[in-house]
Formats: sequence, C-alpha cells, structure tokens
Amino acid sequence: MNFSPAELLTRVRIQKPLVHHLTNWVTIYDCAQVVKSLGASPVMAHAPEEVADMAQIASALVLNIGTLTAGLVESMKLAGNSANQRGIPVILDVCGAGATRLRDATCRELLETFRVDVIKGNQSEIARVAGLTVSTRGVDAGQVNADLAELARALARTHEATVVITGRQDVVADRSVTCLVNNGHPLMTNVVGTGCMAASVIGAFAAVEKNLCAAAASALVCYEIAAELAAEGCAGPCDFKTRLLDRLYALEGATVSQRQNIQCF
Amino acid sequence: MNFSPAELLTRVRIQKPLVHHLTNWVTIYDCAQVVKSLGASPVMAHAPEEVADMAQIASALVLNIGTLTAGLVESMKLAGNSANQRGIPVILDVCGAGATRLRDATCRELLETFRVDVIKGNQSEIARVAGLTVSTRGVDAGQVNADLAELARALARTHEATVVITGRQDVVADRSVTCLVNNGHPLMTNVVGTGCMAASVIGAFAAVEKNLCAAAASALVCYEIAAELAAEGCAGPCDFKTRLLDRLYALEGATVSQRQNIQCF
Amino acid sequence: MNFSPAELLTRVRIQKPLVHHLTNWVTIYDCAQVVKSLGASPVMAHAPEEVADMAQIASALVLNIGTLTAGLVESMKLAGNSANQRGIPVILDVCGAGATRLRDATCRELLETFRVDVIKGNQSEIARVAGLTVSTRGVDAGQVNADLAELARALARTHEATVVITGRQDVVADRSVTCLVNNGHPLMTNVVGTGCMAASVIGAFAAVEKNLCAAAASALVCYEIAAELAAEGCAGPCDFKTRLLDRLYALEGATVSQRQNIQCF
Repeated sequence: MNFSPAELLTRVRIQKPLVHHLTNWVTIYDCAQVVKSLGASPVMAHAPEEVADMAQIASALVLNIGTLTAGLVESMKLAGNSANQRGIPVILDVCGAGATRLRDATCRELLETFRVDVIKGNQSEIARVAGLTVSTRGVDAGQVNADLAELARALARTHEATVVITGRQDVVADRSVTCLVNNGHPLMTNVVGTGCMAASVIGAFAAVEKNLCAAAASALVCYEIAAELAAEGCAGPCDFKTRLLDRLYALEGATVSQRQNIQCF
Repeated sequence: MNFSPAELLTRVRIQKPLVHHLTNWVTIYDCAQVVKSLGASPVMAHAPEEVADMAQIASALVLNIGTLTAGLVESMKLAGNSANQRGIPVILDVCGAGATRLRDATCRELLETFRVDVIKGNQSEIARVAGLTVSTRGVDAGQVNADLAELARALARTHEATVVITGRQDVVADRSVTCLVNNGHPLMTNVVGTGCMAASVIGAFAAVEKNLCAAAASALVCYEIAAELAAEGCAGPCDFKTRLLDRLYALEGATVSQRQNIQCF
Repeated sequence: MNFSPAELLTRVRIQKPLVHHLTNWVTIYDCAQVVKSLGASPVMAHAPEEVADMAQIASALVLNIGTLTAGLVESMKLAGNSANQRGIPVILDVCGAGATRLRDATCRELLETFRVDVIKGNQSEIARVAGLTVSTRGVDAGQVNADLAELARALARTHEATVVITGRQDVVADRSVTCLVNNGHPLMTNVVGTGCMAASVIGAFAAVEKNLCAAAASALVCYEIAAELAAEGCAGPCDFKTRLLDRLYALEGATVSQRQNIQCF
C-alpha cells in the first residue's frame, strides 16, 4: 500500500474541492454536510439547464439514484458528460440497484452514456450491476453468494473503473489492485444515509488524488474511523450520525494512521 | 383491548418489513430514519416508472401529500393501485388538508382511485377530509368543534378504513372499535415531522398486523412512549427529535407495557 | 437605532406567523424547523396549482433558489405575485448566484416579475446580483473587492428593497438606513444551511414588522445570538446546529438585549 489516508485527508482540507452532487431527496442534506465536515465545499444542483455549467466549476461529481426520476437521469447524463469533458472524477452510487427495473435500466444507461470513474454500492447492488440475480430489500443490502473481491475486480475490468463494495468489510478494486477496509462500526447500518455519505466522501478524496483506488480506500478509512470514534458512548443511531459528522470534522491525521485497518494486494 | 403494543413492536423487529414511501421533501429523511430506528427497512421511491414495482416488494405503502405536485399524485395512484393488488396496507397522511384547494381535491382523488386502509391526520385535516369547513394554519392543526371520536368513526365508515386523528389525545377508529391513546409529549408539536413520522411508524406496524386499528394504536403507543422518554432531560425540540429516534430504537417491550395509556371501546 | 430585536422576537412568538417557503431540497427541513423553533408556523409548498392559494393564507413568503428548476421558478413567480397582491413581504435568498448562468438569469427574472422586499445572500452572491463579476465556489461565499455597505445600499436603491449581506459582519440596508450586525459565530460557516435558515428567520420577523430593515436586522441579531450560545461547549458543527435551533427556541429577550451587537446609521 503506497498511499496515506491521513495525507489525503490533509489534502482535502487544504484544497477544499467543490463536490457537485445530483443525489436523492432523502439524504441530500447529509451528503452536503459530510463534505462540509471534511472541510470541502458541497454543491447540489440538478436542473438540466445548469448541471453542465456546475460540473465545469467542480472538482468531482457524485451521482446517486436513490430517488431517481426520468428527468433526473437526463440531468445526470448532462452532468456526467460535462464532468468527463473537464476531466474530473465521476462517482456513481447505484443506490437501490436490483429493487426495480427502472434502477437496473438506469445504471446501464448511465454507464453507457459517460465514463464513470468509481462505481459504489453494497454487495447486492454491485452484484446486480454486474448482471447477477440478487435478492434485494429496497436500498438495504441483500446477501450475495459470490467472492466480493472477485466481483469488484470483474466489474472494474468491464467498466475500466474503480469499484467500491461497502459492508462490514469494504472492497475497493480497480483492474490491478484490491484493497480491503476493515474499519467502521455496526451502527452504520442502523442509520439512513451512511452509504450515501460514503460516496460523497469518496468524491471529495477523488477530487484531490488521481489514483482512485487509493482515494476511495482512503476516504472509507477516514470516514469509518470517524464512525468508530462516534460509536464510543453514543446514545443511539441518530446521536451516532451527529457524532460521526463531528468526529470527521475534528479527525486528526495521527488517529487515522494509528487506527487504519486496510490491506491492499 | 385484545392486542399488545409490545408484542407488535417485537413482530416489527423480527419481520423487518419494507415500508415504501411517497412522501414530502421536508421530512423524508425522518420518515426513513424512524422506520430504520424501529428495526424495519424504509424505501423512498416516487418515479412513475418504478412505484408499482417497488410496492410489489414492499409490506406497506405510506403516502404523504405534504409537498405534493401533480406528478407525485399520479405516482401515488400507481403505487396505491399496485399496493391494493398485492394486498398490502396503504396509509395516507392527509398532510395540510384544508390549506389549499389542491390538497382537498387530491385527498378526494386518492381516496376515490384506490383503497386507503388508514387515513391519518391532525384534527383539522381529518375534519376537512370528512367535509367540514375548518380553519387551518398550513400543516399545523386548527381547532375543530366536533366530537373527534365520532368524526373518526364517521370517516372510517365512509371509506371502510381505519382513521387516525393525532393530537394531545389520539383517536384511532374503525367501524366497530375506537381507541384513545394518551401517551406522548407536548414537545412533539414543536418539532417539524413528528406527524409524518407517526404515519411511517403506523406503516411499519400495519405491515405485521392485519387488525389495522390494533396496528395503528400500537404504533402510536410505542412512538409516543419513546417521545415521553426522549423529553426527560432534553435540551430543546431538536435534541428531543434525536432522542425520540434513539429511544424508539432502544425501546423495551416491558417499558411499553408499563407506560401504555390506551382505552379501546 | 429605533427598534428592539427582543421586542420583535416576542411579537413573532405571540403572532406565530405562517411563513410559506419555496426553497431547496437540501435545507428544507432546517428552514421549516428554524421557523418552528421561533414559535411560528412554517409551510413548504411548491406545486404551481397551490402556491398562490398558500401565499394567500401566509404572512410572509421565503424563496430560495438553492436547487432551482424551471418548474420551481414558475411556481416562485405565481407565489411571488400572489404575495404581492396580498401585501405580505417576499424574501429572496439568491443562493448560489454567480455559480451558473441559470442562477443569474433566474435572479433577474424573479426580480423583474414581482416585487421582492428583501434580497439576501452572501457577499459574492449579492455582488453578482448587483452585476459585478465575482469568483464563486458554488454556494459558499467568494471574496468581493467592494465596500459591502455601499454595495447593499446600491442594490437596495435599484430594487427598492431591503438588502441583506450575511457574513462575519452582516450588512442590512435599505435606501436610507444601514445596519451592521456583529453577532454570530465562525462555526456557522461549517454547517450546511445556516444561510438558508437566516432567510427563514428574516421571513418570520418580516411578517410582524413593516420596517423591513429593522425586521431583518433583528432577525439576524436573534438568530446569531442563538448561534453564539450554541457554540459554547458544542462538540462540532452538527451538534452546533442542533444546539442553535434549541437555543433559538429558548432564547430570552433579556439575553438578546444584553448581547446584541448592532450599529445602524
């Protein structure tokens, strides 16, 4: 492993990248706040008349299909193409893939229309995007009978992208490297939006580091160490979310280096 | 009273029903989180292309007209019909009924288009849906000069539904039974979203119990006992909401049985 | 200075004005809750079929272009015209002005279509609306090389409006009076939504006081004193926001009078 999550965190705080989102209406606030808590700048904009312009002043683009509509998908295409043109990383959170035909079709359509640099989802969502048949519970992860690292690598090769599978152990893979992140806390699954926020954090890190496997793995390490710290003495899932955002704001590089639990091979 | 709120809470936690929402953009996060805090699975989806599919994998459907648009109303019809077909309960929160002609017309339209199993609102909203002239303050309750239990029963008969009127004393009624729930805390009226969340909790309970009067009354009992616990030592309405969600997450059956304040007749 | 922020706060709490919003999907909850924490009534409604009706029962209208779309802009025009007809104050938060051509064009369009009583933004947004070339970072403030008081006064004269520039020192100006508000806390810039909430608070105060310069300055004084109190002993930006809303709820007139730091000339 030839990168330092703590160093990338510092870079985010110094460069304060503008992270443009087209996301869902459920966790849109938390996606913005998690970027703000990192010291970067979030901007949410989805009108077809302005998404291309906004992507031109941004340093990363985060897309999330959590409450997609046909109109929003069209805006995502405009934003994605603009981001590609400008050469900024595009992160796609395939939120709810497998739950409906619309979500599956939308994932395919977006992946065919512009270059996605990071594809992110939980295990059943990523399996579905990779073409497997999965059981899904809406936006919560279903179990997948597959080697997740192999699944991530295969999808990474197909789309020439970095693939992130979040879960108890996160998998981050591109065509040549696989990283396993073992940080985090079980309470994350009891809070709405922890998955969406992860994609936003990845966006902020991808804005400052071209090796997207390093960026995504570092993002998860920092975010999930903040979650570990937040869990200590918290009163429940909702208090946990507040603390997670605040721990991320105050997270020290030394703490990251000390607690990071990551293997790359 | 031949049902146990504590027992139904346990059932929600074991069965973890998927509760599909088409709701408003103000409290959408809280509606999702309250279902998550119960141990169930929320999913929010409103695209006309996918709502029928989503309802087919859900165990309850919650509709809320808080920030309705014409397009959203069309999606609600598709979702409602799909839910009827599948036989899952449909909960309609008539948020803001009486405030504008659009809201009144929409309530009528939805109630005519598909079967609504639980109609829920505050006293002025329910009175308006029942055809009375009311004074309204947007989405906050106005006073109604009527016997609320009688009002609920009459509307229940008209629509062959269970009717829920939330307030200091909640009324839950179907054609044969009326329950009065005396749990809760005055701080609930100082927090945006407590009404919307109540409908989501009712959705989760209705997913696991066919007697919808029992389900709705039990849902309110559990939710409002969590509110009572949350109020103890809280710092203000916003802190109260966090604590309410966390107390619901940790709520014990024994506490429910001990504190429930409900009469059915 | 011939007005009392504490007295206006009391008036808001007694009159409990209904504040109608057409705002963005990011901070819509916080805009509603901040009005609720003040003791007033928020209502969020954006359907073109109902915005004119809703404005007719409201005491102030708050518009925010943070996540505008073409449809939302049309609804804003209907709501703005209805508010003008009824004679209630219209507050426009020019959120993200300067970031895209759509936002600039929309600000112009709204200001030409109906009377805006209070134009509110950060320094780069207001500079942009005034026709200056600015550097913007999405919705975060960029530096402006101009005398902010002069800028506010000039824009106030152009649009016969009260102009509010938020920042470390807020400027509130109409054609004849300029007020500088020095309350507040640096943590406000680390929280998503503090600017949007400021506009909502201004809306609530403008609903109870015809001198809009006094209303806006008083609103900022009260809101920012709550922020000062919230910052004491807070754990981070997210905890700070919760505390800000709760301190506003509990804010005493005597505290306002004691801590207000405002000069008018």
